[in-house]
Amino acid sequence: MERPSVIIIGAGFGGLTCAKHLARANVRLLVIDKTNHHLFQPLLYQVATAALAPADIARPIREILCKQSHTRVIMAEVVGVDIAKKIVRTHIGEEFSYDYLVMAPGARHSYFGNDQWEKFAPGLKTLEDAINIRERVLASFEMAERCHDLLEAQKYLNFVIIGAGPTGVELAGAIAEVAHQTMFRNFRRIDPTKTKIWLIEGSPYVLPTYSPDLCIKAQRDLEELGVRVICNKRVTEVVPEGVQVENTFIPAHNIFWAAGNNASPLLKTLGVPLDRCGRVLVNETLNPPGHPNVFVIGDAAFALDPGGKPVPGVATAALQEGRYVAKIIDKQIPPEQRKPFKYFDKGSMATIGKFRAIAQVGRLHMSGFFAWLAWCFIHIMYLVGFRNKVAVVFSWVGLYIFGRRNARLIVRPIEELSSEETSLAPTAGDPVSK
Amino acid sequence: MERPSVIIIGAGFGGLTCAKHLARANVRLLVIDKTNHHLFQPLLYQVATAALAPADIARPIREILCKQSHTRVIMAEVVGVDIAKKIVRTHIGEEFSYDYLVMAPGARHSYFGNDQWEKFAPGLKTLEDAINIRERVLASFEMAERCHDLLEAQKYLNFVIIGAGPTGVELAGAIAEVAHQTMFRNFRRIDPTKTKIWLIEGSPYVLPTYSPDLCIKAQRDLEELGVRVICNKRVTEVVPEGVQVENTFIPAHNIFWAAGNNASPLLKTLGVPLDRCGRVLVNETLNPPGHPNVFVIGDAAFALDPGGKPVPGVATAALQEGRYVAKIIDKQIPPEQRKPFKYFDKGSMATIGKFRAIAQVGRLHMSGFFAWLAWCFIHIMYLVGFRNKVAVVFSWVGLYIFGRRNARLIVRPIEELSSEETSLAPTAGDPVSK
Repeated sequence: MERPSVIIIGAGFGGLTCAKHLARANVRLLVIDKTNHHLFQPLLYQVATAALAPADIARPIREILCKQSHTRVIMAEVVGVDIAKKIVRTHIGEEFSYDYLVMAPGARHSYFGNDQWEKFAPGLKTLEDAINIRERVLASFEMAERCHDLLEAQKYLNFVIIGAGPTGVELAGAIAEVAHQTMFRNFRRIDPTKTKIWLIEGSPYVLPTYSPDLCIKAQRDLEELGVRVICNKRVTEVVPEGVQVENTFIPAHNIFWAAGNNASPLLKTLGVPLDRCGRVLVNETLNPPGHPNVFVIGDAAFALDPGGKPVPGVATAALQEGRYVAKIIDKQIPPEQRKPFKYFDKGSMATIGKFRAIAQVGRLHMSGFFAWLAWCFIHIMYLVGFRNKVAVVFSWVGLYIFGRRNARLIVRPIEELSSEETSLAPTAGDPVSK
Repeated sequence: MERPSVIIIGAGFGGLTCAKHLARANVRLLVIDKTNHHLFQPLLYQVATAALAPADIARPIREILCKQSHTRVIMAEVVGVDIAKKIVRTHIGEEFSYDYLVMAPGARHSYFGNDQWEKFAPGLKTLEDAINIRERVLASFEMAERCHDLLEAQKYLNFVIIGAGPTGVELAGAIAEVAHQTMFRNFRRIDPTKTKIWLIEGSPYVLPTYSPDLCIKAQRDLEELGVRVICNKRVTEVVPEGVQVENTFIPAHNIFWAAGNNASPLLKTLGVPLDRCGRVLVNETLNPPGHPNVFVIGDAAFALDPGGKPVPGVATAALQEGRYVAKIIDKQIPPEQRKPFKYFDKGSMATIGKFRAIAQVGRLHMSGFFAWLAWCFIHIMYLVGFRNKVAVVFSWVGLYIFGRRNARLIVRPIEELSSEETSLAPTAGDPVSK
């Protein structure tokens, strides 16, 4: 009998973990990803704020899996899955048939039906996004320094971040540190500490998935860093000149989006029920009902714990799901003998800035320096590759002791940056109430 | 009396050295550069071949100069110099007047009148160039792995490098090492060691500025690495499918240009005599004749040593010129009292690959392991910034011991890479003689 063919789509936390746990399985394994690298997304905001280089948090997928001789990796975009014929279609026309399929394509931003906002308010999911945000942030200070009058310069020093989940909070805190620490003494005309950062959240609290006592601490930390936190308000319009937050207009050159997710549109081609965010509604063994040889994991799946609680869209959940699915495939467990997936909540943590973080492990709530130290250790621990661990530790010593950011590079040619600049309207200063 | 105003255009080796040596001068200093970073160009080929990250060899100009409170840095493109009115014009419309002007705008590639080749055969001068070449090289292996038949795959595994000066030789050697060492065990369908690399040079030898005994050694080293060296032949046509070298056509997906330089077109706006390569013909005190307050240094200048020999276009010459000019400006030495610029030849060296380099210091000729070791030490020594030195040493340990390249990232989205791919004609295999 021929060894079963397994296809994994996406080499994020879930997909890559599944692939690695199939290292000794008696299967033929194909991993398909749009990019050539596995990305450690929890530190992506540090690439976006010039603290880390892209190479510090990414490694080639084929390099990670090169010792698994039964594993092939191809860089291609999957454009459709034919669940009846058990076939995966790619953008290069090639089709692959599978016995087991693991879908781990992740999610992209959701602009809640306002996709035209994306151009003015880019989000942060890929390395390309991070480099784009990094160049916008750095170029903004450069353009401010070139301005003749300070009022004109101020528009380049106004930043709005929409959405106060972990990414939004981390980005806001890091941009505040860029302005107050990294740019210290770097400019002559402008004063980077005049940078204004708004963080806008629709819920009553920042980091709304945490318990209220930690949310309040996180908000206080943000405000101490100089971030203006606006909760309980919705963004009603995004234009190149700024953001309309209900009846207030905030003029800003830099607008970043961290507000919502939609699962990969690829999932629609499965023809199985999806939730509002485009996630596949999987059963307790992570299959779309009726398809026991197809698994959907990570941000692409909406799964319920045996307790009835939704499995959260976090890295640890994806890792556990990847391992769970690999075991089923490795042992070729028939559907009726599979035990339901149980999510083990290891707790969650978010950082606001240097020496500032919050952590929640069961009933234990932590904040401040020790929570931050734990955050550092855990992120280094999970980072793939010894070289990357050393590089990040080394960069963090410079960052957290001296405020140094090692990747302050604008690579895009000046002509491109300038064409963006001229499209800006001459608005500046403080928010104006209508 | 007001302090004199000094403008430095370009923060490469010459411009930045000049700026640093004016740290204690009683002047107002303005540094203008198109980019926000100083680039250590001698290691740029290692960024292009994924061994180093861009941030390892680049640092923000304003960060380097931030302690000089009389120094302003702006990121802008200079579009013209009015030498009569002593005014510098930038692309943002702002004009700056100067008492002393130091022109150090560097050079770009020259395609010898065939500018249409640039699209198919990009060169290597900026970080953007290096990232572009890196993505092309890495994506080529990815595309080869996706091919159905090996003949089709081979076209992605054929590389042509035009010009065997230091950049061409380093690039050819490094791509050979990528194919033979880094990609080891990474692919299933293709065999990366089947990669073919041609290095084409119009002169009788590779590295033609070195003495023939060293050239022969360098060529032998290249051939041992698997590079096919073609000397004494000229490229007559470059098309997306390959390169015409006199009466032989070499089919290749990857063509890189390292053959010629033209000084910055900005120099034409000075209205002073230029040489064939667009360089300003400066006098013995590095001024265009008749303009003692304007200095031209680095790759932008054609200068003669008091001995009558041309000053070479190398980093050490630019450094010495920058220091020389800073001294004249600092002490405000009047033209008639200035001593002529003397170039001190510290020797030159080029590397071919791991444990392979050549060095020439006066009558001393070295090659092999010790020349390579010297090359490593000297490049680390000259690299700006402690953090970058450590990062490069650390990367080199991985590179030279394990063949590891830490920046194997393709950041461009797959759609863009694919649109390039479809424009390729289905040619492959070995060169065909007409």
